[in-house]
Amino acid sequence: MRLRKRPGALEVLRERPEIVPQKPENMRGHWTVDEPLHVELGTGKGLFLALMAEKYPSISFIGMEKMESVLSFAAERMEQQNNVRLIHGNVADMQDYFAKGEVNRIYLNFTDPWPKKRHEKRRLTFPAFLNLYKEVLSPRGDIHLKTDNEDFFTYSLEQFSGSGYCLKNLTLDLHAHEPEENVRTEYEQKFAERQQRIFRAEAYLPE
Amino acid sequence: MRLRKRPGALEVLRERPEIVPQKPENMRGHWTVDEPLHVELGTGKGLFLALMAEKYPSISFIGMEKMESVLSFAAERMEQQNNVRLIHGNVADMQDYFAKGEVNRIYLNFTDPWPKKRHEKRRLTFPAFLNLYKEVLSPRGDIHLKTDNEDFFTYSLEQFSGSGYCLKNLTLDLHAHEPEENVRTEYEQKFAERQQRIFRAEAYLPE
Ligand SMILES: C[S@@+](CC[C@H](N)C(=O)[O-])C[C@H]1O[C@@H](n2cnc3c(N)ncnc32)[C@H](O)[C@@H]1O
Ligand SMILES: C[S@@+](CC[C@H](N)C(=O)[O-])C[C@H]1O[C@@H](n2cnc3c(N)ncnc32)[C@H](O)[C@@H]1O
Repeated sequence: MRLRKRPGALEVLRERPEIVPQKPENMRGHWTVDEPLHVELGTGKGLFLALMAEKYPSISFIGMEKMESVLSFAAERMEQQNNVRLIHGNVADMQDYFAKGEVNRIYLNFTDPWPKKRHEKRRLTFPAFLNLYKEVLSPRGDIHLKTDNEDFFTYSLEQFSGSGYCLKNLTLDLHAHEPEENVRTEYEQKFAERQQRIFRAEAYLPE
Repeated sequence: MRLRKRPGALEVLRERPEIVPQKPENMRGHWTVDEPLHVELGTGKGLFLALMAEKYPSISFIGMEKMESVLSFAAERMEQQNNVRLIHGNVADMQDYFAKGEVNRIYLNFTDPWPKKRHEKRRLTFPAFLNLYKEVLSPRGDIHLKTDNEDFFTYSLEQFSGSGYCLKNLTLDLHAHEPEENVRTEYEQKFAERQQRIFRAEAYLPE
């Protein structure tokens, strides 16, 4: 999200500790009692998460976002929702926030493609990240990825397959036959207006 | 290849035993001395194979094709080439013709997509076929796939990843930036004329 620093963003987060826990590492292993836990990485302003939380009230959702400015908009949006929490943090530190096998599903929605080879390590499907996800995902857990970026998409498929994940439900043009259950993210709405093709994949670990 | 039966096709094959061995099962394990062995499955009339054999004289090429009519055209085409042989046979019987680890590369070019679910078993990337390929491929062997069919492409990526293969060099529009080394097959030329998108993937077995 390209965004100027929002004045007072940190205060917006601090004033909502029930949505944005001050010490999310203390929640590690205790985010849910027995409902499934779905985590969106790079949640931005939280539109997708808010819509999903409304649609699936018996699932617990968490959004991770490193930029306080965008996250402050998400925090305001979630005030009506009691099954969403937000972590102000970096995906690289995911294991500080989630115990082994605690996460049932990870969403990667339009995360930055970092097209330059020298920035490859920042892509959220770089092998080091895929190995992190293995640690926190439950045995039948999976990753749902959507992107508008063809190169990031093919890169991600290659990395998934190279890191021991299996692929399913691949789609090279999601909006051509949009499934009823698809929930559009903020970026997805923008790309749809410009008629851009959306790619989608699911990855899971074989048992 | 949609083609009427060609009268005399079988004779065309029989008259060329140095190109189309009468008993290819006797060659099992002895196709090459020490040059690499590349096999195209569903070779049709053999245009791709003829161009490849000319381009890479130090590689030994084999085309497998079950339809004698199309294969007879390939047999005539190969008369100038001494590094190509053809097997009149079904891919399902591949292990009768190739020893464990004998094949360095498999080409799957525009093989029939069999779109109906009940024909899934005939697709040359159905798991039973992918397991066959594992038997005959050498340790660093790989599979190069090209297709115009989006559903067959995504199906194949899912099956590769689910059968223990890793993916590399994925391309969702091969002709948009056609690599210099790409050799177009007969079907590929037709699709290119109609401006159809060509998909490409490589699959290999991790060590
Ligand atoms: C392009 S935006 C997409 C936002 C939203 N998912 C959507 O689809 O509308 C990607 C977001 O991921 C966040 N992000 C990228 N890398 C991150 C990381 N390592 N940790 C946490 N957030 C990250 C960025 O700050 C940005 O807000
Ligand atoms: C659509 S054509 C493509 C021909 C060529 N590879 C090209 O790209 O121009 C597919 C060919 O695969 C052959 N084929 C399909 N299944 C086969 C099998 N199980 N064993 C041998 N050949 C097969 C068909 O007979 C047909 O000639």
